[in-house]
Amino acid sequence: MRKVETVLIANRGEIALRVVRACRELGLRTVGIYSEVDASLRHLSLCDRTICIGPASAAQSYLDRDLVLRAARLTQADAIHPGYGFLSENPAFAHAVEQAGLVLIGPSATIMQRMGDKIEAKRTMIATGMPCLPGSDGPLSDDMEQTRALCARIGYPLIVKAAGGGGGRGMRIVQEPGTLEQAVQTAREEAIRAFGNGALYAERFLTHPRHVEIQVMADRHGHAVWLGDRDCSVQRRHQKVIEEAPAHGIARDEITRLGALCAATCPQIGYVGAGTFEFLYEDGAFYFIEMNTRIQVEHPVTEMVTGIDIVREQIRVAMGEPLSFTQSDVRCGGHAIECRINAENPDTFMPGPGKVTHWLPPGGEGVRIDTHLYDGYVVPSSYDSLIAKLIVRGRSRQEAISKMHAALGETEIEGIPTTIPLHLRLMEDERFRAGDISVHYLEECDHTRKKDGSHDAK
Amino acid sequence: MRKVETVLIANRGEIALRVVRACRELGLRTVGIYSEVDASLRHLSLCDRTICIGPASAAQSYLDRDLVLRAARLTQADAIHPGYGFLSENPAFAHAVEQAGLVLIGPSATIMQRMGDKIEAKRTMIATGMPCLPGSDGPLSDDMEQTRALCARIGYPLIVKAAGGGGGRGMRIVQEPGTLEQAVQTAREEAIRAFGNGALYAERFLTHPRHVEIQVMADRHGHAVWLGDRDCSVQRRHQKVIEEAPAHGIARDEITRLGALCAATCPQIGYVGAGTFEFLYEDGAFYFIEMNTRIQVEHPVTEMVTGIDIVREQIRVAMGEPLSFTQSDVRCGGHAIECRINAENPDTFMPGPGKVTHWLPPGGEGVRIDTHLYDGYVVPSSYDSLIAKLIVRGRSRQEAISKMHAALGETEIEGIPTTIPLHLRLMEDERFRAGDISVHYLEECDHTRKKDGSHDAK
Repeated sequence: MRKVETVLIANRGEIALRVVRACRELGLRTVGIYSEVDASLRHLSLCDRTICIGPASAAQSYLDRDLVLRAARLTQADAIHPGYGFLSENPAFAHAVEQAGLVLIGPSATIMQRMGDKIEAKRTMIATGMPCLPGSDGPLSDDMEQTRALCARIGYPLIVKAAGGGGGRGMRIVQEPGTLEQAVQTAREEAIRAFGNGALYAERFLTHPRHVEIQVMADRHGHAVWLGDRDCSVQRRHQKVIEEAPAHGIARDEITRLGALCAATCPQIGYVGAGTFEFLYEDGAFYFIEMNTRIQVEHPVTEMVTGIDIVREQIRVAMGEPLSFTQSDVRCGGHAIECRINAENPDTFMPGPGKVTHWLPPGGEGVRIDTHLYDGYVVPSSYDSLIAKLIVRGRSRQEAISKMHAALGETEIEGIPTTIPLHLRLMEDERFRAGDISVHYLEECDHTRKKDGSHDAK
Repeated sequence: MRKVETVLIANRGEIALRVVRACRELGLRTVGIYSEVDASLRHLSLCDRTICIGPASAAQSYLDRDLVLRAARLTQADAIHPGYGFLSENPAFAHAVEQAGLVLIGPSATIMQRMGDKIEAKRTMIATGMPCLPGSDGPLSDDMEQTRALCARIGYPLIVKAAGGGGGRGMRIVQEPGTLEQAVQTAREEAIRAFGNGALYAERFLTHPRHVEIQVMADRHGHAVWLGDRDCSVQRRHQKVIEEAPAHGIARDEITRLGALCAATCPQIGYVGAGTFEFLYEDGAFYFIEMNTRIQVEHPVTEMVTGIDIVREQIRVAMGEPLSFTQSDVRCGGHAIECRINAENPDTFMPGPGKVTHWLPPGGEGVRIDTHLYDGYVVPSSYDSLIAKLIVRGRSRQEAISKMHAALGETEIEGIPTTIPLHLRLMEDERFRAGDISVHYLEECDHTRKKDGSHDAK
């Protein structure tokens, strides 16, 4: 058991507030770090100590692992919660934290590294019996003839992806053999530029998959459970926009089999903490795409249907405590939806930082809001534009949609643009309401909107 | 089936907002009524129509049934939700609503009348097999000799209460036969002054009971279910301060028997809508005290543990729809606590109306806030001082207490006094944490605090 008294929160915004809340409930001291433009972040007033670590530039503050570690030493923190983004999936940081004798609230550097490399992750998962897309199962050869033969075996359409990347960069869809060579070349150049690593892999491309994921939680004593599933198909530019729990319209026995497999995989691969197995789902089959080794933005929908505080449990497990529940304690009830509210133009998604001149959050039955906003808060231009997560729970998906629509409608925010109008349109959209969605839904939906202009009047 | 398109909300404050939210989720139009000092109530901006019905004096606005009915006619409302307090348990109002051909979202005038008369209510309950305190089972005679003989049979200590009242008026505890006559005389005078009705009844007085209640919901088709139990023992001057669901430390099979009895009673007595059977609980036994024929302030704790939206269901049932769930669908999970936050001095309970100059509500996992507050809102002096209900849910009572403590601690409110410091103290109090409470707990706790001053430093 590692004694932890003080947790340094190596993040900002809503997730920093989320973590401080969990620490306070557990009776732990907290240290907040912030950049020069973030001195008025809401969570800082709840921290026992705060420390400015650098200028607005993330590279010189939140992303600088030496600065973060120095802040931990200065404030005698004995654990670090990295949140999501920033250093949360950086194995070098995890390693440095371990070397410094501190507790990282997350998995080990070793497993983080292994899951961060998509080829390595897929190899590991194939070995545990996890369903994966037919693919290269390793980096593509520089020899174009070999690659061509391999891709013929995988089948078209297929996708070529950077092994070390994410966020849509170094990625090309190849519809037929004639365009393969060109695609590989462009993807490789992009991957080198973006990630300093030209390794690519190829796998079958699904045309209308849904994004379905399994939340797991594992402790240091060999226990692991899965906490239900989520659908995160509503995306734009590979960024999730709306998340739901559970994934509607999928037979519960299929999901249960998959969930049990994910839980069983954790002790096999030495995974500890909260994690997410991400899958594509098409025509009744699941295909593993990657594992996220951190808390996710969308974790609240799982909390809403299970009643389990994932961040609290994450901290307990990192301290060496055994999981406070077993698989049979996890009972999912109802349906939860999360809308990510961004400070962006709801049509163009152009970020719109600035001062919040008026803010009135929604509330009431089945409504949760996770946000660092307050009246007068200035949204800086330096970071991600997520300003609030609105989460609702109803007994059914239909009830949750009604509740979300009403909650979005009563939210008042002035001074900056937000994506609330987009979310309101989506809650009214027949396709969304019918659950007829794939990862391309939002693009298709936007396309329709622009063509006939019918949504513009709303 | 009664077609309802427009609901008039005959109330103010947080409960008016609660009802508007439920109506919006159900796609119903809403009419808000308000007094002259209430034009800036938060729920009004969410209503489709609003109408000022009179001056600040409740007697000339919210309590005037003719004004409320006139507003309903003017705005073509076809249903009225009375909330709690004001006209919500007024049989004459219920009767007038029925006569006007409108739907009252509540039970019939007949049953409201019967439950409003405590003697009549107790007689009805005894007939259904409900456990009641030994008592006079009818009004006390004017003949003191008869009364004395009756009270000897009931046993001492006993309590003498006004049949037509509540809120602690017209009520006297009698420790021994020698003080009976004086007590009856004072109580009768008080009852006549307060309620225009000198009828009194007597029953055994319990020395350290808990207040435990059962939430029921019944439709017009003979279905009735109970939605779990609540403990509301933390009271001051007969006003609930903290409510919890479920009632801790009581064997679940006892509660289940009692709940089933309450549900079975509804069709027998012709009860439709949401209702609460209130009991005293002492030494393992329950004693019915009264039935509340309306939504209660503390309904959110039940919603938090069942996931059922009681107000939404109340509206559906009033429209003639069958209950949307059966008894086996009701599954209670975890533990919920509600703290009533009042605009009052936390030590003296003196109301402190005024302008809210800063307001930052708590949020996050397991936290719900029902409030009409916003930055700049002016709490008027004319009404009840309840300004917000903070409700949390944890997996256990201990987890809920930690969560409440953290949530209270992050709530920021300036410009008016609130009872938040009191709630913080109670969450830290060993007796409360151990669940060692009765309806006298808060008085005893205050007493201790004043005597040794130990809490004052916190």
